[in-house]
Amino acid sequence: MKMITLEDIKHISIVSPSKIVMLVLDGLGGLPDAKSGKTELETAHTPNLNQIAKKGTCGLIDPVSPGVTPGSGPGHLALFGYDPLRFIIGRGVLEALGIGFELKVNDVAARGNFCTVNNKGLITDRRAGRITTDKCVELCNALSQIKLQGIQSFVLPVKEHRFAFILRGKELRAELSDTDPQKTGVAPYPAKHIKPIAKHTADIVNGFIKKASEILAEHHPANMIMLRGFSKLPDIPSMRTIYKLTPAAIAAYPMYKGLARLVGMKVFNAEGGIQEELKILTDCYNKHDFFYVHVKHTDSAGEDGDFERKVKVIEQVDAALPQLLNLKPDVIIVTGDHSTPALLKGHSWHPVPLLLYSQWCRTDAAKEFSELACASGGLGRMPAINLMPLAMANALKLTKFGA
Amino acid sequence: MKMITLEDIKHISIVSPSKIVMLVLDGLGGLPDAKSGKTELETAHTPNLNQIAKKGTCGLIDPVSPGVTPGSGPGHLALFGYDPLRFIIGRGVLEALGIGFELKVNDVAARGNFCTVNNKGLITDRRAGRITTDKCVELCNALSQIKLQGIQSFVLPVKEHRFAFILRGKELRAELSDTDPQKTGVAPYPAKHIKPIAKHTADIVNGFIKKASEILAEHHPANMIMLRGFSKLPDIPSMRTIYKLTPAAIAAYPMYKGLARLVGMKVFNAEGGIQEELKILTDCYNKHDFFYVHVKHTDSAGEDGDFERKVKVIEQVDAALPQLLNLKPDVIIVTGDHSTPALLKGHSWHPVPLLLYSQWCRTDAAKEFSELACASGGLGRMPAINLMPLAMANALKLTKFGA
Repeated sequence: MKMITLEDIKHISIVSPSKIVMLVLDGLGGLPDAKSGKTELETAHTPNLNQIAKKGTCGLIDPVSPGVTPGSGPGHLALFGYDPLRFIIGRGVLEALGIGFELKVNDVAARGNFCTVNNKGLITDRRAGRITTDKCVELCNALSQIKLQGIQSFVLPVKEHRFAFILRGKELRAELSDTDPQKTGVAPYPAKHIKPIAKHTADIVNGFIKKASEILAEHHPANMIMLRGFSKLPDIPSMRTIYKLTPAAIAAYPMYKGLARLVGMKVFNAEGGIQEELKILTDCYNKHDFFYVHVKHTDSAGEDGDFERKVKVIEQVDAALPQLLNLKPDVIIVTGDHSTPALLKGHSWHPVPLLLYSQWCRTDAAKEFSELACASGGLGRMPAINLMPLAMANALKLTKFGA
Repeated sequence: MKMITLEDIKHISIVSPSKIVMLVLDGLGGLPDAKSGKTELETAHTPNLNQIAKKGTCGLIDPVSPGVTPGSGPGHLALFGYDPLRFIIGRGVLEALGIGFELKVNDVAARGNFCTVNNKGLITDRRAGRITTDKCVELCNALSQIKLQGIQSFVLPVKEHRFAFILRGKELRAELSDTDPQKTGVAPYPAKHIKPIAKHTADIVNGFIKKASEILAEHHPANMIMLRGFSKLPDIPSMRTIYKLTPAAIAAYPMYKGLARLVGMKVFNAEGGIQEELKILTDCYNKHDFFYVHVKHTDSAGEDGDFERKVKVIEQVDAALPQLLNLKPDVIIVTGDHSTPALLKGHSWHPVPLLLYSQWCRTDAAKEFSELACASGGLGRMPAINLMPLAMANALKLTKFGA
């Protein structure tokens, strides 16, 4: 069977005044606590979510494919309706988006590590003893002085030994192999062109690395760099083009704002948690018809293995929901970009609970928003990329396919 | 992931004496009434369907893809196991099938509108004031007099301002743009060839339109025509070839008979409702091994927004079922080609309830045939094109795939 394409959806999407709010609790899905037998979501006291679930319909979504643990990039692309197996966000691009760098279409980005090499040039520590972020900032400033012929370079600190490296100029290509060998005891590799056309860029990168090693010689343990994940922005059609929406993103963290910008959303910055996010939503409600609202701290708590904190974040979101409900959006979606069970302290492959409410959603038997209720919900289990067409349909923004 | 293909199915299908009856209640799926919280199917008193559901297994099917509202063409093709995203039935072909015109493989068909143009040739009414069907018949007869060099043309009335236009002859191509601009205030477009090879056909069509406009000049408000959806029959393998079945269709409405003929079914005409359809089924039962029985009025009632009437049609079908059960088919399927909730007064995207019974179906927990029971049924939620392989399997008409 052919899969439905973005072109197919574009063909049947129409503009209408109805409004869709997609509330994404990052890493929402969890695993049951051994004692209580309940997940984070099931443990949380969520009267508002349960009320929506009662009137709405529930299901489970797989961001990439059953069993596959998604990164934040693929997880979000899938929610926005883009096949994460087709639109690949490279490591370098994600790193740049993550620090809020506004990548241009032809920029080449890479993830960088400061590392330690011995007097033979062999790597002894891939993280340079985890230098402080302050030291990272200092070294990035030093490397930013490197001049390249006709090419602009950016060396931007991320955290500890990590930085983002971006090249901007004409005829740059990203088909380069990593210089990071992912092991110690060997020298960093030179960047090699994977396609002949990328040879010019490989030369530029290797020239940069040579100059960087000279500057860093006196900065042991951070006396060398490694680069990996050379990539450009994927060529991705805008949500404005595909869905004919005027989409807005409300988020605090750079990576999510970057992902939203990538698919054509207008980005609103919200530093003050869900309360401020919903205040911004209210303020810009008349000017947009699709709203992606991102909550980060469910994921952070899960990553930290803090079951109780994740429960609390979910409860805070629930408590703030009346502000959202007062706006009476035509379609409300609550879900996550992936699961982050506190028990696993990281992203996981588990399908993500999904709650969808609209006047036309065909209410199911789910009486609460929980992994268990979602597993037998009316939406069944489906690939996450089906969510946007479903949201559009419930907002009566899709016409008939075929006669 | 590669999807299973018709070639794969053909490879494993075998002939056996077992019999499959697929009862299609057009537009079966519904939405719950606000007061009762029950859909049309859930409101209907259906002891026989519930009895089969108890012994059988239930699920939900997506004719095209979640969120996508199917037309009748795609909906039916999917039920017969043909990917509706691959086998496209053009608007013109559907219009011709809909009036029972027996299209040949190389015919080019278009949907026609009589319209009104002013003295500058600009469209003022896209429906010519909705002329009567009698007037439509008269004008179609007049246009049927137009002679084209070496090409046969058919102008056939549909209803009010609508007609079907068919060209028959050598080297005709359907890669033509619409002449219907879908708006007023502009002149109808000339037909343009989308591929160079279609230029000859474009010239023929434009020659026809010129002659038509001369004949219609005195027939204001129907003084012009517009054509759209130029198409040929899709090149579709027969169910006889793929499934090695001897399939029969029992239906009243031309479009469904046309769709059935398209996939190689022998068509039986049944004007007298479900009772007559099941009488015909009984009569031809020994001569075929697959039976598609089509009930139209569930859809008509849904389109009219008549919840109660749709309930009644479902009850009529239920009451007639013993006649079907007496035949003891090896596989009984009850489903729809799409949902048509009375609340939406039209086709919708909601997945369609599916009931399958066979001796080998693996009975599930569903105790009745309803959207709710289907949502947690043993078949889960699946693409509708999986239904035919499932029917074949339950009839023990498929051998093992691979060694």
